[in-house]
Amino acid sequence: MRIDLEELKNKIKPKLRPIIWRDEDNTLILLDQRKLPFEEVYVELRDPVSTADAIKQMIVRGAPAIGITAAYGMVLAVAHSNVSSLEEALNELSKARNVLNAARPTAQNLFWATNRMYNKAEQLIHNGYVKSIKELVDELKAEARAIFDEEFEAELKMGVYGLEKISDGDTILTQCNAGGLATGTGIGTATAPVRVAHALGIRVSVIAPETRPWLQGARLTVYELMADGIPVTLITDTAVGYVMYKGMVSSVMVGADRILRDGHVYNKIGTFKEAVIAHELGIPFYAIAPSSTFDLKSTVNDVKIEERDPDEVRKIRGVPITLEGVRVFNPVFDVTPPKYVTALITEKGIIYPPFEKNVPKVLGVE
Amino acid sequence: MRIDLEELKNKIKPKLRPIIWRDEDNTLILLDQRKLPFEEVYVELRDPVSTADAIKQMIVRGAPAIGITAAYGMVLAVAHSNVSSLEEALNELSKARNVLNAARPTAQNLFWATNRMYNKAEQLIHNGYVKSIKELVDELKAEARAIFDEEFEAELKMGVYGLEKISDGDTILTQCNAGGLATGTGIGTATAPVRVAHALGIRVSVIAPETRPWLQGARLTVYELMADGIPVTLITDTAVGYVMYKGMVSSVMVGADRILRDGHVYNKIGTFKEAVIAHELGIPFYAIAPSSTFDLKSTVNDVKIEERDPDEVRKIRGVPITLEGVRVFNPVFDVTPPKYVTALITEKGIIYPPFEKNVPKVLGVE
Repeated sequence: MRIDLEELKNKIKPKLRPIIWRDEDNTLILLDQRKLPFEEVYVELRDPVSTADAIKQMIVRGAPAIGITAAYGMVLAVAHSNVSSLEEALNELSKARNVLNAARPTAQNLFWATNRMYNKAEQLIHNGYVKSIKELVDELKAEARAIFDEEFEAELKMGVYGLEKISDGDTILTQCNAGGLATGTGIGTATAPVRVAHALGIRVSVIAPETRPWLQGARLTVYELMADGIPVTLITDTAVGYVMYKGMVSSVMVGADRILRDGHVYNKIGTFKEAVIAHELGIPFYAIAPSSTFDLKSTVNDVKIEERDPDEVRKIRGVPITLEGVRVFNPVFDVTPPKYVTALITEKGIIYPPFEKNVPKVLGVE
Repeated sequence: MRIDLEELKNKIKPKLRPIIWRDEDNTLILLDQRKLPFEEVYVELRDPVSTADAIKQMIVRGAPAIGITAAYGMVLAVAHSNVSSLEEALNELSKARNVLNAARPTAQNLFWATNRMYNKAEQLIHNGYVKSIKELVDELKAEARAIFDEEFEAELKMGVYGLEKISDGDTILTQCNAGGLATGTGIGTATAPVRVAHALGIRVSVIAPETRPWLQGARLTVYELMADGIPVTLITDTAVGYVMYKGMVSSVMVGADRILRDGHVYNKIGTFKEAVIAHELGIPFYAIAPSSTFDLKSTVNDVKIEERDPDEVRKIRGVPITLEGVRVFNPVFDVTPPKYVTALITEKGIIYPPFEKNVPKVLGVE
């Protein structure tokens, strides 16, 4: 099926809008993801300090979503300020960048977004392309919007490439939430092919494992797919193998936190077991992620997998499920060797094995 | 290592005692398993009606534990009654059998135990082997004790056979709770080799996945191993694959709810995925169960896997973790094909593939 991207943009209107910019009064509106799916609360922001605070408090999460939020945080730095000159405005933007960058000091996407906004402003001002604060604000709004639009378009492209792997009536097993909440666009990465298929009238449904310890599957994936009317079934993490054994799964589609040149995929804990079982049962396994996820320098021996607070396992939503003093092993991610990966789906195309050769080729970095 | 069973009995003294018979005042004392591990509450029972009620309310759970409890429930029917003749006593036992059998109408072990007790009493009375109520009570106490002792000995034998598969320093991955709480003896089936090894001074530790939806791993396995001082680490169900990938697991040892002649193993949901990953990574997978678990007549097509209440997935300890209306698939068990089973360990010996040939041979039912 040939798909025109502009046509698709008219067809795909996610109901889920985790990041909204209200132009009339220059207000950034964030869906408070900490409260999902139990409460749908939106937070209104009009300055960079409270935007940084929203990032810090995890009202917004996911690298692309944090990037978009920070870009709009930069807009807020001048949109509501009392600066009287463009040089003063640039000074405000520099302060805002520091404040926003400090919100999540390990988030590459955050620094990238604030730098892009600052550099844009500097260039506009120093080259005389803007003559007033009003013009600067308008240009920065356009730049933030461009960051959002580029992300949205990249996800649509992943969706369109991924669509090749979906047939009418398919059921997709996923893991965690690599959806429109994490990216801020309402589309997502792992969920992009499903959303594109659904928008085109192809019948597709999703099986979402709850994904302990944080239950992003139960809390977020279920919520965002139901919001868009996409059929979704929640299972326990224990049932992941059985649904494949029973023939209920057409393919596995997950996101990725990092992908190595040789095809090793780092993603939320639990992904590895899905990949091994899918491989054993002849079910395709796809990791869907933007090209920015690829780490072409590291090898599997370089990457350390973070372990987190044992209480995340000992308690669920604050309620204890075991003895207080029990020893716990709580790894955040796992790594899936390339042997179990059918293909990697990016906005630049689908990458098949051998990955060592095809990853740089498809990403255009040979 | 040659192990003398009588010697082992002196060495293995589980601290965990879910079923206690207090001889001085003929009282049955049950550890209330519903409240574990948060509260250790014991319930004292002196009549068959409240014993049946304790079974119904799941104060005691697990087929062997229910059998032992029901046997003592039969003792209580005469120990505290006002009957004046042996015929009246037999009548009381018949009534008690009905009451106890109705507590869990699908529990084969329950019927087996109450019938054994009733038949014993009938034989004793009709053959004139007992002359008084006091003598009858003493004989019935001995019979209930024999049921407990036979279970205890069978589990020790499974433990001794399983010990062949444990080396000093091993870490065993299990699933759910097939431990001493479920059997009532404090030994268990899947946990028997670990307990025997520990009693003999062999260093062994256990990794217990939490086992959603009911969290028996987090609530019961962790509790009973810690009670006996056996090192145990709790993980989420999502981390099951990663611990094997990381080389943290020497072998997988699980219980079974039913085993077919061809080696298909039915056990708690989540077992299948452990077996597939273990197989892929070259880690041995053992199912440990008494010979009564074998169903030599059915085939894999005959056995229906029960699905349970969706709210077991939607909530954890009463706390919602997802949207109320989400569709849920909640299978209780899964089935592991013989391809992934390294061996079956029973009280009659270890059964290796080909199972079709060796299951009847080792069980002695050729």
